[in-house]
Amino acid sequence: MTINIALLGYGTVGKGVYRTIQQHQGRLQKLLGEEIKVVAILVRDIKKHTAPDQSVILTNQYEEIQQLENVDVVIDAIVGIEPAVTYLQNAIEKGRHVITANKEMFAEKSHILRELAKKYHVSVGYEATVAGGIPIIQTLKKLLNANKVTKVEGILNGTSNFILTKMREEQLSFDNALALAQELGYAEADPTNDIEGFDAYYKASILSELIYGEKPKSEQVERRGIASIAKSDITFFNELGLRYKHVATIEYAQSHVKCAVRPVLVESNHPLYQVEDVQNAIHIEADIVGSISLQGPGAGMYPTASAIIEDLIHLKEEDRDYTFNEESALDQQSVKTSWIAYGRSALLQLPEGAEIMKMIANDTWVVEIEGDLSIKDASFIEILGDTTRLKEVKKIH
Amino acid sequence: MTINIALLGYGTVGKGVYRTIQQHQGRLQKLLGEEIKVVAILVRDIKKHTAPDQSVILTNQYEEIQQLENVDVVIDAIVGIEPAVTYLQNAIEKGRHVITANKEMFAEKSHILRELAKKYHVSVGYEATVAGGIPIIQTLKKLLNANKVTKVEGILNGTSNFILTKMREEQLSFDNALALAQELGYAEADPTNDIEGFDAYYKASILSELIYGEKPKSEQVERRGIASIAKSDITFFNELGLRYKHVATIEYAQSHVKCAVRPVLVESNHPLYQVEDVQNAIHIEADIVGSISLQGPGAGMYPTASAIIEDLIHLKEEDRDYTFNEESALDQQSVKTSWIAYGRSALLQLPEGAEIMKMIANDTWVVEIEGDLSIKDASFIEILGDTTRLKEVKKIH
Repeated sequence: MTINIALLGYGTVGKGVYRTIQQHQGRLQKLLGEEIKVVAILVRDIKKHTAPDQSVILTNQYEEIQQLENVDVVIDAIVGIEPAVTYLQNAIEKGRHVITANKEMFAEKSHILRELAKKYHVSVGYEATVAGGIPIIQTLKKLLNANKVTKVEGILNGTSNFILTKMREEQLSFDNALALAQELGYAEADPTNDIEGFDAYYKASILSELIYGEKPKSEQVERRGIASIAKSDITFFNELGLRYKHVATIEYAQSHVKCAVRPVLVESNHPLYQVEDVQNAIHIEADIVGSISLQGPGAGMYPTASAIIEDLIHLKEEDRDYTFNEESALDQQSVKTSWIAYGRSALLQLPEGAEIMKMIANDTWVVEIEGDLSIKDASFIEILGDTTRLKEVKKIH
Repeated sequence: MTINIALLGYGTVGKGVYRTIQQHQGRLQKLLGEEIKVVAILVRDIKKHTAPDQSVILTNQYEEIQQLENVDVVIDAIVGIEPAVTYLQNAIEKGRHVITANKEMFAEKSHILRELAKKYHVSVGYEATVAGGIPIIQTLKKLLNANKVTKVEGILNGTSNFILTKMREEQLSFDNALALAQELGYAEADPTNDIEGFDAYYKASILSELIYGEKPKSEQVERRGIASIAKSDITFFNELGLRYKHVATIEYAQSHVKCAVRPVLVESNHPLYQVEDVQNAIHIEADIVGSISLQGPGAGMYPTASAIIEDLIHLKEEDRDYTFNEESALDQQSVKTSWIAYGRSALLQLPEGAEIMKMIANDTWVVEIEGDLSIKDASFIEILGDTTRLKEVKKIH
């Protein structure tokens, strides 16, 4: 028997999947008890590609793939909502399993694919949509069995993390660090998706649906990018022991999902502190186990291929049907959060209930508040980690 | 229907399991479709304990538990090889699933329990034996599907990590840091198991069997403790950007498993660098995905209970039968490793093939060698992480 695969897209991810299947055929066959074969590849521009093997159909017409009778699994390695979601719906309706690495599509359309897949008794794999090679989806599915996840904090975009790392390490301006990321192929010509937090928001949305059974409402998501962070601020906070990171947070509070993507300052004992360059990491708080973190490559040819191949292996396993139970949800409403109030005018804006903990540099205070300091102002920056370790200064001048 | 549990041991871990089952009964029942009930608890000294509930049998006679007809699962939360392994063998022979948190026993006797369990068609859960609440066993089982793990580096003992952290942060001597660990209940009156690396070696051995299908031969394991590390050395290397960590490594080289537990120096970009206090962490290198790391609580009442409960939920799942394939194993023999050569006499002992890369302080050089610098001498300390980031000094005096 053979498991026949149609590959949608033959860019970095598509090629990674093809090569991984070729190179590790023996291993995969042993695991699955069947040969795995890519039988067809869909590309946009057929002139730019050649079939990697004579037996592989290379086409720019999805219809051709849809009409093949021998396809068991469709792997989506293209970008954007359409036509990907239509292709996958068609595939499911033909009784095919689907695996996707397409985060924007899955963040927006997962419910459609899931429902359809249920009806047609096929699987939808999406490990590759979040944090590349880090097995976060499988880990959460497992952890969710006994534990309730109360909060997730993640560095989910390698490009913005690379830019912040280079700004700090090499004292580059944002523009120069972005140019470097583009030169190295980490950032697109239009970097909006990465640096403005859209990509991280898609991933957070996928995690949120897995953990809490619902996506955050996009109009309620605080999404802030990193383009306005000054090199001098990065240096300044670094000297105080704090690193800027572009972090997505998801938690459940007051009966709904709360999601934010924004620059925060991370203290050196926090697991996200040393996540550098294009690495991704996820810090999970759960009610029985406490906190655990996972770190690894957030993108790239083989890490993403690895996640897709893992999905392939688990295709036929029945997922335990996890349903989030709102009644027993752990509301996070009364948790204290720590913030930098930066600049003298910040202090004047402090809402009632906020407490000034200490001054750690001139015009720079640590403040604490119950819940969120929801003044969306760059003079307030959330701190992750242990603020007791930040040194207090009595007087600077 | 009810899943009836007998608990062996009612110390920290045993109590954590009992309480977790009580507190999360609704959640667990929903997941398993059956009620979970602890029906019997084995303790050593019956006078020191009271049954948490009138319906629970509290006994100091294992025979009594063995003769109960309604026990489905036996959870081992005691310490030491015997009588634990005998109890679990008896339990399996009566058709009971077993779950253990007993690392010393499982490191030594896993093969006996596994074989017996196969014969009697029951499961052996051991997530709690390694790194407490970190789901490392499940993660490796999943990752192993498509990936081959080439190397594991882990901080697997919270006590020794706590001591090294306090020596650095508070400039304590080893003895004072140990006394603090004992005062806080992190270290036993006899701390040998933790500080000499026996505990980490048991855990490494369990991981090795899972990954490579074999345990390291104990006489070939380089196991070195942390007791001889001077406070001044910790400070000295910390100023150079290196932190002492007590790290267990497992890899496959020249057709056998190579395992070491020893103090190493970790550079600030390596994921193990910021693993502090009683935290555990594991850094995995695998051939498709690259490197991923997991970090979390390595011990404690609820983290360990969490791991045991996760095992309970997966009891009835068939494990994919993973067998390590030696032929396709990736030998790590030609990998370059970096070391500190510390003290002028160290340079004189350098074996052929070792290359001096740079001097980073007076009498302190970074050297590289293919394979292991297997002079078991405190003047050579392996460096994990990126040595190009270490600053070179031309001349100190």
